[in-house]
Amino acid sequence: MSVTAPAGFTAAGVTAGLKKSGGLDLAVVRNLGPLTSAATVFTTNRCKANPVIWSEQVMRGGVVRAIVLNSGGANCYTGSIGFQTTHATAEAVAGRLEISAGEVLVCSTGLIGEQLDLGKITAGVWDASLALHAGSAASADAGLAAATAIMTTDTTPKQSAHTSPAGWTIGGMAKGAGMLAPGLATMLVVITTDAVLDSGQLDTALRQATRVTFDRLDSDGCMSTNDTVTLLGSGASGVAADPAEFAAALTALCQDLTLQLQADAEGSAHDVAIVVQGADSETDAVTVARAVSRSNLFKTAIFGNDPNWGRVLAAVGTTQAVFDPYGIDVAINGVQVCTAGEPDQPRELVDLSPRAVTVLIDLHAGAATATIWTNDLTHAYVEENSAYSS
Amino acid sequence: MSVTAPAGFTAAGVTAGLKKSGGLDLAVVRNLGPLTSAATVFTTNRCKANPVIWSEQVMRGGVVRAIVLNSGGANCYTGSIGFQTTHATAEAVAGRLEISAGEVLVCSTGLIGEQLDLGKITAGVWDASLALHAGSAASADAGLAAATAIMTTDTTPKQSAHTSPAGWTIGGMAKGAGMLAPGLATMLVVITTDAVLDSGQLDTALRQATRVTFDRLDSDGCMSTNDTVTLLGSGASGVAADPAEFAAALTALCQDLTLQLQADAEGSAHDVAIVVQGADSETDAVTVARAVSRSNLFKTAIFGNDPNWGRVLAAVGTTQAVFDPYGIDVAINGVQVCTAGEPDQPRELVDLSPRAVTVLIDLHAGAATATIWTNDLTHAYVEENSAYSS
Repeated sequence: MSVTAPAGFTAAGVTAGLKKSGGLDLAVVRNLGPLTSAATVFTTNRCKANPVIWSEQVMRGGVVRAIVLNSGGANCYTGSIGFQTTHATAEAVAGRLEISAGEVLVCSTGLIGEQLDLGKITAGVWDASLALHAGSAASADAGLAAATAIMTTDTTPKQSAHTSPAGWTIGGMAKGAGMLAPGLATMLVVITTDAVLDSGQLDTALRQATRVTFDRLDSDGCMSTNDTVTLLGSGASGVAADPAEFAAALTALCQDLTLQLQADAEGSAHDVAIVVQGADSETDAVTVARAVSRSNLFKTAIFGNDPNWGRVLAAVGTTQAVFDPYGIDVAINGVQVCTAGEPDQPRELVDLSPRAVTVLIDLHAGAATATIWTNDLTHAYVEENSAYSS
Repeated sequence: MSVTAPAGFTAAGVTAGLKKSGGLDLAVVRNLGPLTSAATVFTTNRCKANPVIWSEQVMRGGVVRAIVLNSGGANCYTGSIGFQTTHATAEAVAGRLEISAGEVLVCSTGLIGEQLDLGKITAGVWDASLALHAGSAASADAGLAAATAIMTTDTTPKQSAHTSPAGWTIGGMAKGAGMLAPGLATMLVVITTDAVLDSGQLDTALRQATRVTFDRLDSDGCMSTNDTVTLLGSGASGVAADPAEFAAALTALCQDLTLQLQADAEGSAHDVAIVVQGADSETDAVTVARAVSRSNLFKTAIFGNDPNWGRVLAAVGTTQAVFDPYGIDVAINGVQVCTAGEPDQPRELVDLSPRAVTVLIDLHAGAATATIWTNDLTHAYVEENSAYSS
């Protein structure tokens, strides 16, 4: 179960013909209320796609009753025609669901700089609206169809759900396999809940959750122009959730989706957790971990099962975090290969054959810690991103 | 001709046995004077190798009579034993050349976190000193041997020389194929001149030259721990060079070496010039160009001969430079694919089959311009950096 797990939501995923592959490529998630709470986190990339510009306007209105998402084209750098396409998409959804276009968020993903075919989108919205009106629109199958329709280079749909003993539920879906590095958010994510919470409460919980989950996924260092994380609240459970419990559950759900995204990152052969401890501040810990996660030499070494810890320290040294360069420890998969800037255990003891890799860096400069999740750099990544436009 | 082109310099390149391949791996360049002027630019990586720490001390002494360089090991993160190895290397050179160890710069390149074999180095220094005392030590062949001995994953030695009508000469050699991204400098470079210039004048000219040449080469985004650019002056021509003419000639020579490094970057299939114009400041132009040069999605697209300009703009959008995101033009190899943030000429018109690629980005925000030289991201890069420790 995913976005349809909470009460008050229906979903649909249909084939509009935008994807060359002919698969599902248009999704709609509808909030039936009684509440229309919503919170969003958008990309911090200054080159924002038309659907992001549109959705920012919708959020200023404060009421969200539906979100429509398409794969097969990012509708970014497509000028005024592209913005009209986004607007017309929202209008089409609004017309079919008898709501206002200003209550419809729009997300797009795919190639930048190409116009979307509005005719195909309109037809797809028609099909989706038929599905939304069917009896099965709140089923797990409907949620799965929506999660499948937003996939681009993803190989599997990503879904998660959680039900509180208090009686409310959260559900979510996500897509993203490349251009995975956050500004505030990364990728497309839709999360729904039937907890009774207003938009302000949702916003607080969402920012708290994304800061330590999606924001700390950095698969390939490339920030998308279309990233949007949306949290919709229907209030249909009738249960006023404890904000702290809700935030914790939301964070856990976002974490689950984050690790699903990492596991399906383009061409990856390893899931790498860069754990920095002993940092002077959390910001320092994130900065150091992110520097390592963006080193192509480190990433290729991991692909080659080579515990080349010199490449870790070379990346650490490019940052301005607080540390003594000759007081750093590094352990890889439990083997302490470097202590206080000198070789310790032989690198040959490190086993990098499992998919899961943990690099532990102790800066010995404080008590703060942070983890960045990244992937290795592989032939398959190069193949996927050189042989196909995406 | 390279470092032996100017009068007053001898060079040697020998096999010390540090490289597994068994090739030349230790070089010495000697300044016979009468001047002992010197200027250096070191990596800004805070994780500095032992030879960098040593050479910074030598520069404070102000007199440089020789520089010894080895491949086959970076001597970085090797602790006090590693520093003793560097010190002993300088002592060995000093003993053989009857100069002071404090007048000997040391450079090392290769794998981080492994001790160098001092016995091999000492034997290599002995052989090098014999070569330096031979009659051919000032020949082009001696310069070539030195340039060859500093190669790691380089496939060809890099040399350049220039003689002024005024009667003075500059010569240089460089190595570097991976970890190519500058702090102040990048890679190992030794430049010699017989112009009569003091160390202050050399320093001014060197910083002026590296700022717009080596500093603007960003092949793989990874900054080395060992980067050192050295300029040695013998004054042996007896000609006091015009500082402006000298600086211009030095910049041209550094540019030549920079493009040789780019052309031999690990696994590269394209040499890419990212030219930013219309920037509010030179800093902005560099920032934007560097962001594009570090986008793995852009780099893989170029490898695939795919003029995916959306990936250019997505990278531009991650910066804080002054620009209107919807006022940017992009041309690739002369085809204007994007005007004012909208599609212009069809991307199919772009021919990316030649090795040389120029991406021209006009920010329309001012009059400043800058170029960053980079490479594509290829299967061969992944292979070279995953299959071998370096």
